[in-house]
Amino acid sequence: MKLLQETIDSIKEVDKKYMQEAKSRLDSLFKPIGSLGALENICIQLAGIYENKYFDTSKKAIITFAADHGIYEEGVAPDPQILTKLQIPNFAKGVSGVGTLGTFAKAKIIAVDVGVNCDEKLEGVLDYKIRKGTSNIAKGPAMTREEAIKALEIGIKLAKEAIEEGHKVLGIGEMGIGNTTPTSAIISVFGDFDPIDVTGMGAGLNHEGIIKKAKVIKEAIALNKPDKKDAIDVLSKVGGFEIGAMAGVILGASANKVPVVIDGFISYSSAILALNLNPLCKDYMIASHFSAEAASQKALSLLDLEPILYMNMRLGEGSGAALAFNIIEGANFMYKNMITREEVGI
Amino acid sequence: MKLLQETIDSIKEVDKKYMQEAKSRLDSLFKPIGSLGALENICIQLAGIYENKYFDTSKKAIITFAADHGIYEEGVAPDPQILTKLQIPNFAKGVSGVGTLGTFAKAKIIAVDVGVNCDEKLEGVLDYKIRKGTSNIAKGPAMTREEAIKALEIGIKLAKEAIEEGHKVLGIGEMGIGNTTPTSAIISVFGDFDPIDVTGMGAGLNHEGIIKKAKVIKEAIALNKPDKKDAIDVLSKVGGFEIGAMAGVILGASANKVPVVIDGFISYSSAILALNLNPLCKDYMIASHFSAEAASQKALSLLDLEPILYMNMRLGEGSGAALAFNIIEGANFMYKNMITREEVGI
Repeated sequence: MKLLQETIDSIKEVDKKYMQEAKSRLDSLFKPIGSLGALENICIQLAGIYENKYFDTSKKAIITFAADHGIYEEGVAPDPQILTKLQIPNFAKGVSGVGTLGTFAKAKIIAVDVGVNCDEKLEGVLDYKIRKGTSNIAKGPAMTREEAIKALEIGIKLAKEAIEEGHKVLGIGEMGIGNTTPTSAIISVFGDFDPIDVTGMGAGLNHEGIIKKAKVIKEAIALNKPDKKDAIDVLSKVGGFEIGAMAGVILGASANKVPVVIDGFISYSSAILALNLNPLCKDYMIASHFSAEAASQKALSLLDLEPILYMNMRLGEGSGAALAFNIIEGANFMYKNMITREEVGI
Repeated sequence: MKLLQETIDSIKEVDKKYMQEAKSRLDSLFKPIGSLGALENICIQLAGIYENKYFDTSKKAIITFAADHGIYEEGVAPDPQILTKLQIPNFAKGVSGVGTLGTFAKAKIIAVDVGVNCDEKLEGVLDYKIRKGTSNIAKGPAMTREEAIKALEIGIKLAKEAIEEGHKVLGIGEMGIGNTTPTSAIISVFGDFDPIDVTGMGAGLNHEGIIKKAKVIKEAIALNKPDKKDAIDVLSKVGGFEIGAMAGVILGASANKVPVVIDGFISYSSAILALNLNPLCKDYMIASHFSAEAASQKALSLLDLEPILYMNMRLGEGSGAALAFNIIEGANFMYKNMITREEVGI
């Protein structure tokens, strides 16, 4: 709890002075003011985060977490649970969605087991297993409060380590069969949404499956009574280990003044948790893509973030975050290298 | 006319067999079917275009055209006309919007003068000047039918040359103070839209300026009576040299079986012209970004294309096309390198 509380307390506002300097630089470039839209906003945001007019965004890492979910036994996911265990090593090997797209973006991919339902060590995967999956939220809380804090602190620790290694941009990603269920539960709790309005197909449920999944979520919330004023309570009652760990990365990145690129639907719930632990986190986040999962708009409304990629993606893993890395680097390259009005002689 | 007609006639349907092979490959990968959305669609489209299951997308070029506009004298643009001449050399030098973003994407940037209002040769810019700007469409047609054909054929020729040099992905871009005016005119004609509904701020007009611009467009259409059944007539009556040349690149890329990445608002009108010359062009186009210019939705409705980037950009130049290049390459890298279900043992 000490690391978590210290991290939450140490997050500061981004630096408005450097944001203004970046805006002045952008407005001096030879183009209509503001005409590069989100590319300009990203540069202004990064200047505020790094507390520098110029910055380097070339060294990037995606921290990805795998965990299993007790709620799986209620039949909320179409795929076998073993896929969590089979897929996470492929992140590190560079042959999954985030593995390939992260490799293409020249990012380091850090794969972490925070709760996979297996006994063996997974090749290339850091072992921070809290437990072999959460408990079934249809029967009780997903995890203890101590476990929730542990999940958050693992994320904080790994973010800090990645930043100490020199990574200047972090992304988050996940793997966990069934994890759209806790995600929808978290969004439902924080947004006061009826679960049916924030429950989607996940990896491919049919209409009947979605109805059943929403019912399971509704009952789990009624049973566990998560307190939306206490994000750790929500995480422990209806969350997941990987969801908590990703929220930890957001906190850790924010506290250490590094931007963190949010991925898809699951990561939206991590972002909501982080924001509820410290609203200043928002200014450190960059939303990569608009997930094709049905409740994305509602989840993003709680975050007030605007994604840049609309590609109908719903894989998760960190695949969208990886795609956004090149956009961020491109923005920075433009910012540094475009000619100014003055240089043209206007 | 011979080159134009031969090019239009030689455009073939993309190959459905290879598209099916790509889809089979994508469906065999270790991820939920279809979960990578537009990344998958791009790979399927490219397989159909290249007539190959696997392909290389690393060598890219953006062909950009600069021209001036007689309608400028009606006060439809907030910037001085001389910016066209001052900016196009910066494309080639890599220091404009498309210059920096194209350089970042490792693309060749080809800058072409098809109608800049100057007498001197522009540094680093290919000289294909048709005339020193179109005529004022408030007083008569923008150009002769022969000039319209010449603009299209310049685009076709340069696309062919870039492809012969080994470029496997083309993009289009432009520079021309005042060119949202002919663009809105073209969209108005093909979509039967009232000009006020397809006229926007361009480089930064205020509300009053937009009203005036729409009025100028309405009168120009009434005066010149472009025939929407004849795309060359529309181009010659209310178009621009750079708009025609970009349409030519689309035709040339399609005829030579190379994908062409569409940029923003101005390029939408080129795409509409190309589609009206041969509807098969559509399958060779990739829409990069949703322009912040007001009429983008209406323009895209005529194209039935879905952009992948929503970044509130309105610079043009080819800047959006350049940003999309990395997404396309990332898609291809994922497609080639992701592990299959079979390889995982499922």
